[in-house]
Amino acid sequence: MSDLKENIEKSNRKTIEIMMSGQPVWIGDGKAIDVIPGMTENTVLHAGPPIEWDRMCNPMRQGIMGAVIFEKFANNLTEAKEMVEDGEIILAPCHDFFAVGGMTGITSASMPVHIVKNETFGNMAYCLPHEGSTFKALGWGTCDEETIQHVRWIAEELSPVLNAGVQAIGGINIREVVARAIQMGDEAHSRCTAATLLITRMLAPYLVRLDLDGEILSRVFQFLQATDIFALHIIMASARSIIDPAKNIPYSTIVTTLARNGVDFGIKVSAMGEDWFIGPAQKIRTVYFSPEWDDSVATPDIGDSSIMEVVGLGGLIHVAAPAHEHLLGGTYADAIRKTEEAYSICVGEHETWRIPSLDLRGVPIGIDIRKVVKTGITPTIDTATPHVDGGFIGSGETNPPVEAFEKALRAFGELKEMRI
Amino acid sequence: MSDLKENIEKSNRKTIEIMMSGQPVWIGDGKAIDVIPGMTENTVLHAGPPIEWDRMCNPMRQGIMGAVIFEKFANNLTEAKEMVEDGEIILAPCHDFFAVGGMTGITSASMPVHIVKNETFGNMAYCLPHEGSTFKALGWGTCDEETIQHVRWIAEELSPVLNAGVQAIGGINIREVVARAIQMGDEAHSRCTAATLLITRMLAPYLVRLDLDGEILSRVFQFLQATDIFALHIIMASARSIIDPAKNIPYSTIVTTLARNGVDFGIKVSAMGEDWFIGPAQKIRTVYFSPEWDDSVATPDIGDSSIMEVVGLGGLIHVAAPAHEHLLGGTYADAIRKTEEAYSICVGEHETWRIPSLDLRGVPIGIDIRKVVKTGITPTIDTATPHVDGGFIGSGETNPPVEAFEKALRAFGELKEMRI
Repeated sequence: MSDLKENIEKSNRKTIEIMMSGQPVWIGDGKAIDVIPGMTENTVLHAGPPIEWDRMCNPMRQGIMGAVIFEKFANNLTEAKEMVEDGEIILAPCHDFFAVGGMTGITSASMPVHIVKNETFGNMAYCLPHEGSTFKALGWGTCDEETIQHVRWIAEELSPVLNAGVQAIGGINIREVVARAIQMGDEAHSRCTAATLLITRMLAPYLVRLDLDGEILSRVFQFLQATDIFALHIIMASARSIIDPAKNIPYSTIVTTLARNGVDFGIKVSAMGEDWFIGPAQKIRTVYFSPEWDDSVATPDIGDSSIMEVVGLGGLIHVAAPAHEHLLGGTYADAIRKTEEAYSICVGEHETWRIPSLDLRGVPIGIDIRKVVKTGITPTIDTATPHVDGGFIGSGETNPPVEAFEKALRAFGELKEMRI
Repeated sequence: MSDLKENIEKSNRKTIEIMMSGQPVWIGDGKAIDVIPGMTENTVLHAGPPIEWDRMCNPMRQGIMGAVIFEKFANNLTEAKEMVEDGEIILAPCHDFFAVGGMTGITSASMPVHIVKNETFGNMAYCLPHEGSTFKALGWGTCDEETIQHVRWIAEELSPVLNAGVQAIGGINIREVVARAIQMGDEAHSRCTAATLLITRMLAPYLVRLDLDGEILSRVFQFLQATDIFALHIIMASARSIIDPAKNIPYSTIVTTLARNGVDFGIKVSAMGEDWFIGPAQKIRTVYFSPEWDDSVATPDIGDSSIMEVVGLGGLIHVAAPAHEHLLGGTYADAIRKTEEAYSICVGEHETWRIPSLDLRGVPIGIDIRKVVKTGITPTIDTATPHVDGGFIGSGETNPPVEAFEKALRAFGELKEMRI
């Protein structure tokens, strides 16, 4: 048993070393079907663990119908719904396609995605660009004409311009951007203001030399100006690219995925590869943007963005983003407490991502399911809340269901390789 | 005596309320002689209190000679020096011309300046654009051809482009920029990274619509990308515009100016208008960028940038910029201690500029000479260090000589108006 413990600890160390050695580089944007391996014309990807159409929450269904209309397979919601119900649309988790998606995570063939390459290991990961902090978006589960037109703008104007800029630079190292952003008040999940600013400033000298139309370029910069959270989806793809090489490490009890679809919360654990361990998606402790909204109209926890907590960011490091803690109604002492909790369930501290107000202590990295089950402490996850009928209504935080970790630990105990 | 104390406290409160109500808006850039009242063709402005040529430190003299060459009054340093010594060049403090200057503060007639308008009171203030964090600059006291050519680029390309962008926006409210930047790790003196990023992102959508040459625009964005500190000189002009209406408040013991010329450190106090109270410029506790440099080649404290501490920023709020404290070799606990010291010598807390890790406590504002003299605590000032032969060799912090505050307090006690 002592040998087992030693093996686990060695493997866990190896797992976080793989994560920490990752060098995610944003190498450009492309059309999903052109760049995501296995993507087909009639596939629509969604956030979280696998889920059948009938069990999906309303915003996710609406996002899917919106994608079917976006792809011009259907002219309206009724037709789109019929196609899905007739099995003409393949629904699958982003996580099955080296991708991640914010909120509903809806990504279809013609939509653009950020492409991130982990240069240390050569693997790629993908994420649809953030649609903006406006009320409407497929990600927020709206699917009207305005929502779809905005995705077209992203596909036809924003993403090609960003791609040209990123290619002109020769790629942007997102590990370095995150390192700087943490020095500037980002927890790199709900607050990505500094990362967005840094990326915008890096792109500017290159974009203006590309002979693009000034009005087009101006719209792109206006969108980046209006969208402090824009970098999130680039960082999410980066996190995905970091964790993939850390999967399938025998004996490793480190969490490699946290993802939710608005109904289920799923986790993956390194030693158990792509197996999902599921519990119910939890309520989000939401700060609503308007008094007209409250918990009665809130979708439960949804989205793949909790990949940020897997790599030690977001809800694990509120102490680095006190402005965000204040937004949620907390104090700096609350932020410290949450961050200390995060250290208590992680196996290491990041070598490059360091917290300024903790005298450059590395962010906690490597959530250990053993520690979660033993302490009952689950990672705090920063997130946002969609209305049950779609739409962005608040910012908040939540925690995953401990039962997902318990199931994972039981399955880990039953693994053949463990019977040494 | 109780009445006097009450009068002072009422006046001090009024002084900081005037400071806090200021709305500094960067309205554009212009040529010094075109925009600064009283500027003449043969005037060269310098940092700090008034000082004769013979007593000036070497970097300031070199900066002045560089300006004389820049203005094409002289072809070389020998000619430039002769002109100054012959009295053909008028030397005066920036502070006498509603201006402030970084380090040597050298500003001559054809040089560009940022123009900031305090929209609450209508007054204007000026500051030469930051020349960059390179070794050479007139500000750092070098004056070779490369230095002068760079100022020409700023005058002919950078500043006109920025002016066009700022005018297209209709002005940038720097009070708001600073408020956001403090949430992002800037102390707004030695660390202005967030402010520079915010301003760059604001300018981008406007600049790209102006039909400017792409290569010119690219050079401007490259400079902003390479110059995290760029916003400082805009914020300095903003601080100057904030403090001018707070001068000449009877009974007020609030500091309205802190400025150094490398030899003397001068302060002004509200009740005593434009009178300088002087002590010796102190050594800077410098972190040198190369082991080839040490205190033996360091110029003593120099520059008007300590106007930032007058308005509650910079060395008064290290707790907001732990990354900067670490750069200087300190810990977060050191940053807290320095900030607590700052609160102990100030009379109020800013309503808008708030420190995230202190649960949004306002920055300390209104340094009271009575408190400085009573406690012996002088404000910590963030600054940089020029080589005695010119050149940027390190970043550091210092404190003003307490005797300047003692002299001011004695003079205050002797004021006619005080004999009530």
